[in-house]
Amino acid sequence: MEMPNEQQLLAMAAARGAALRDGRVVLYAGANLPSEEAQQAYSVELSAYPAMGPSYAKEQPDTDLVSGLEVAVRERICSLFSAAWAEPRLPSCTIANLAVFHAFSRPGDLLLAPAAAHGGHLSQRRGGTPELAGLRVADLPFDTRACRLDAQAAAELVHTLRPSLVMLGRSVIITPDDIEPVVAAAREVGAKTIFDASHVSGLIAGGTFPNPLELGVDILTSSTYKTLPGRPHSLIAGRHAEDGERLARFIDRALLANYDAGKLPSFLVTLQQAEADGGAYARRVCAASQTFARVLRELNVAVIAPNPGEVFTHQVLVPMSNALDAPATIKALEQEGILVGTCNDPTTPGAYALRVGTQFIVAQGQDEQVDNIARWLAAALRREVDGRMSVA
Amino acid sequence: MEMPNEQQLLAMAAARGAALRDGRVVLYAGANLPSEEAQQAYSVELSAYPAMGPSYAKEQPDTDLVSGLEVAVRERICSLFSAAWAEPRLPSCTIANLAVFHAFSRPGDLLLAPAAAHGGHLSQRRGGTPELAGLRVADLPFDTRACRLDAQAAAELVHTLRPSLVMLGRSVIITPDDIEPVVAAAREVGAKTIFDASHVSGLIAGGTFPNPLELGVDILTSSTYKTLPGRPHSLIAGRHAEDGERLARFIDRALLANYDAGKLPSFLVTLQQAEADGGAYARRVCAASQTFARVLRELNVAVIAPNPGEVFTHQVLVPMSNALDAPATIKALEQEGILVGTCNDPTTPGAYALRVGTQFIVAQGQDEQVDNIARWLAAALRREVDGRMSVA
Repeated sequence: MEMPNEQQLLAMAAARGAALRDGRVVLYAGANLPSEEAQQAYSVELSAYPAMGPSYAKEQPDTDLVSGLEVAVRERICSLFSAAWAEPRLPSCTIANLAVFHAFSRPGDLLLAPAAAHGGHLSQRRGGTPELAGLRVADLPFDTRACRLDAQAAAELVHTLRPSLVMLGRSVIITPDDIEPVVAAAREVGAKTIFDASHVSGLIAGGTFPNPLELGVDILTSSTYKTLPGRPHSLIAGRHAEDGERLARFIDRALLANYDAGKLPSFLVTLQQAEADGGAYARRVCAASQTFARVLRELNVAVIAPNPGEVFTHQVLVPMSNALDAPATIKALEQEGILVGTCNDPTTPGAYALRVGTQFIVAQGQDEQVDNIARWLAAALRREVDGRMSVA
Repeated sequence: MEMPNEQQLLAMAAARGAALRDGRVVLYAGANLPSEEAQQAYSVELSAYPAMGPSYAKEQPDTDLVSGLEVAVRERICSLFSAAWAEPRLPSCTIANLAVFHAFSRPGDLLLAPAAAHGGHLSQRRGGTPELAGLRVADLPFDTRACRLDAQAAAELVHTLRPSLVMLGRSVIITPDDIEPVVAAAREVGAKTIFDASHVSGLIAGGTFPNPLELGVDILTSSTYKTLPGRPHSLIAGRHAEDGERLARFIDRALLANYDAGKLPSFLVTLQQAEADGGAYARRVCAASQTFARVLRELNVAVIAPNPGEVFTHQVLVPMSNALDAPATIKALEQEGILVGTCNDPTTPGAYALRVGTQFIVAQGQDEQVDNIARWLAAALRREVDGRMSVA
């Protein structure tokens, strides 16, 4: 295949919206688009020069508008997540997690975090971002049968290892964990708890997923383009005002400098819309996941999902045959028009699963098509002799 | 003053372009706007989901367009900066510098870097970003009389201290440094050299500022919204292909994850335009700085700038009276319609200067107005009894 030249690439980028809508269905669980209003609100001129330092005490001239937007975005985040403080300036949740590690630990401290095998993200776990802050990392126990955190074992491990930080939340999360025993244990040993809500922040804002901050977690981090449908960015929120001050001092001193303040009006619109929505989008996403799981089960497709009546997220897993290569599976489904990712199957060591997300199709208003989309996926899959799926 | 509400803030953000153009002049040295074509090329749909991993070997489905754009942007960077490799995915030069520190050093290693007093940026220097990678930092010697790196003393210090890394370039840079003795010394002791070209990358691309990579520097980092007029982002480029592979492996493992690929087409257009321009913009910027310095001198305003015939950058410094507070000075000039920043005066310990940049007004086509703008600034300033300036 001949590679497209620059002008062809630019034309394809300009046509990407149409390409995503026509003949493709986006079931990637970490994806979304900002609303038209949020897209239009981006202000290129607010990106023209930095706005360093605290709101209304910035180094650069004529930055009161940026400061005002920072304050407004912080207030909206606090309102949506019942938080005492918020930090809206960091460009991704990976950088946000790094900032939290640096601000609230010292090199050599111990972090308990979800393992990669159970859906821990590289910015959360052993071998990834925590090591940049010099943290030692131990894996949190996991209940493979229930596909959830093993809360009792995790609480015991907190008591035994006495970590400085405990990282909760995962990239593979089909139902809420029982985090309260871990939060209680962490509090007893003086460990700070962080919940990476990148995948479920829109469900938390919408009230279908329990709010970690209301359950006692100290700090919540999130990206902003999954169930919260904004531009790629991050948010951090927390319970204790002094934590927010400490984090802001840290990033102003050593990590932030130039950030893209032009994103702030767009971010504000996304948060306004999430609040005005009153949880309707989150409920629609969870309903779509229930439907997706039900239809797949009816069609004899193996599924890892909550049972009807339990709390769903935007994710449903489809365990893949061990004979399959993950990239080849993704490619084969892409050729069927289905854009979906794979993940480690948290219930079966060494195995993979498709990670289906319903948040994108619901944001596109395709609620009534979920049944058909599930059938489309099922038609592309075939049950193998090991009881798991491959592409037909 | 009553604070604007959310809708007022959003309206002000939407009107920011007009506000910047009408009645204000932007002399902030770290500022620019992308061209209309570059603004239009941003693709919100390419930001909809991540594209993790190497080009054409990504985790996510349907990412060949992102991969193609990554390759095209890398090729353009290599062409503009005579580099063997380029990394275009990190969101800011502060994060880019952090990535370079982590990828090419170990905690406890020694970095030589420009001091804050001489214009070193927080992402370069002692007390800032290098410490996040566990680096010890020693200041590079500076020739306060010439307002340049003290190249001979720096080379000697490299031989004496044998650092792992040497960071060159500064945020306050009125003329090129003589970096070759330092590069040679670094090579002799096995230290890697990095040049943070955030301020001068557009002048390097345009041929008015010596290319650090051609002078033997190993790695060049830069932001993309100063003399290179793009959206806020970063670029990294280097001489040795294996360094690029090492850096990419590192950021894919621990720092990048979700990046905003929608910026890539916009970035590509900015680089295309910089190359097509053939250095005209850089030459106009340097001419504007010469004019600015000449006019201020003619009006008896104290100036720190090269002499006529020497190599200018986009920066000219105006030493401020020691009686002045920097934020109050910035605010007073803002009220005159002049947006400008201050910096440590590198020639006088403990003193401050206005750091005037000509790159924004030249990008706006105001070349013919430079003389008048310099007179406007001069009219706002008054020479104090200490020979330095304050706001009239």
